[in-house]
Amino acid sequence: LARQLDFLLELDRAKSVLRRSYLADASRREDDAEHMWHAAVAAVVLAEHSNEPLDVPRLMTMLLVHDVVEIDAGDTFIYDPGYATSGRAEREKAAAERIFALLPPDQACYFRALWEEFEARETPEAHMAAAIDRLLPVLLARSSGGQAWREHGVSERQVREANSHVREGSAALQEVVDAVISDVVSRGLLPGR
Amino acid sequence: LARQLDFLLELDRAKSVLRRSYLADASRREDDAEHMWHAAVAAVVLAEHSNEPLDVPRLMTMLLVHDVVEIDAGDTFIYDPGYATSGRAEREKAAAERIFALLPPDQACYFRALWEEFEARETPEAHMAAAIDRLLPVLLARSSGGQAWREHGVSERQVREANSHVREGSAALQEVVDAVISDVVSRGLLPGR
Repeated sequence: LARQLDFLLELDRAKSVLRRSYLADASRREDDAEHMWHAAVAAVVLAEHSNEPLDVPRLMTMLLVHDVVEIDAGDTFIYDPGYATSGRAEREKAAAERIFALLPPDQACYFRALWEEFEARETPEAHMAAAIDRLLPVLLARSSGGQAWREHGVSERQVREANSHVREGSAALQEVVDAVISDVVSRGLLPGR
Repeated sequence: LARQLDFLLELDRAKSVLRRSYLADASRREDDAEHMWHAAVAAVVLAEHSNEPLDVPRLMTMLLVHDVVEIDAGDTFIYDPGYATSGRAEREKAAAERIFALLPPDQACYFRALWEEFEARETPEAHMAAAIDRLLPVLLARSSGGQAWREHGVSERQVREANSHVREGSAALQEVVDAVISDVVSRGLLPGR
């Protein structure tokens, strides 16, 4: 129990890791804890749109912890030029090693495996988790007037590419994402290709 | 799907409802979304300490939405003198009516019933949800040096009373809460009785 409480207190730091996304009302950027909460609620609400049958509690738990590694590794913007080559994967792996090991061994293994499953994006739950993890920032981007994308000089082509694997989890959510991007473009809030 | 997305966007506002609790590092107050995330993770980690066998996914989902009514009703501090008589229950009921009804009818009923179950505190899941909902602010209060309690002139007696029903959900967590309160008192961070 002492180890479990240490883990929960350590996780408090996710509330201080800022993402690039703004809240829907554009008042400020959201943090990792808020994003993981929003994603876990979306898991319950949107699970029925998964292409494949899935284990909803597993999906929820995966989304509840999918970004805790950023406590150590920091948030990485998917549109950053060095996204794939900046050592992000190594930093996040080391973070997972440290943070989940705060738990008793059985729970440490469970969460660590769940996080690796999310990163590998090969199971139905991981496909759907990735879809929700992309859908929410796109919805927030529309509501907040495309602010995060503009601030970082992101183009429509980049947004479409980065969000094209939503279909692996849910064809229905891919349609939503595509329509939202088109809407933002049509309102002149994203530069052309 | 359109209704589900409306609901998820409406829930974004929970990120702007500030609670009285400070983050563990005392840098600022936490918001409802962060608290619900923390509580849902705690549900997974601490479920084994429940007095009674319970449905963990149900507990997680209950905690993921237990405070969304505060989007309309606002956060109420359990130590406020008028806590029980301020019309809080009526405001929250109206909020639940409005917010969950954004969803398709089957999901609206499901979430609405889950929230009412949380409020009624009669099932094993609701007992454990209440225990976790009390445990986390007590842990944060210790880490942040008792700031929230001091700011509101809360006494040791009030804190002990307000956190005495943790035992309904978990005898083990009640012991933790009692020990943490004693620790805060022994460090002179809470006025005596």
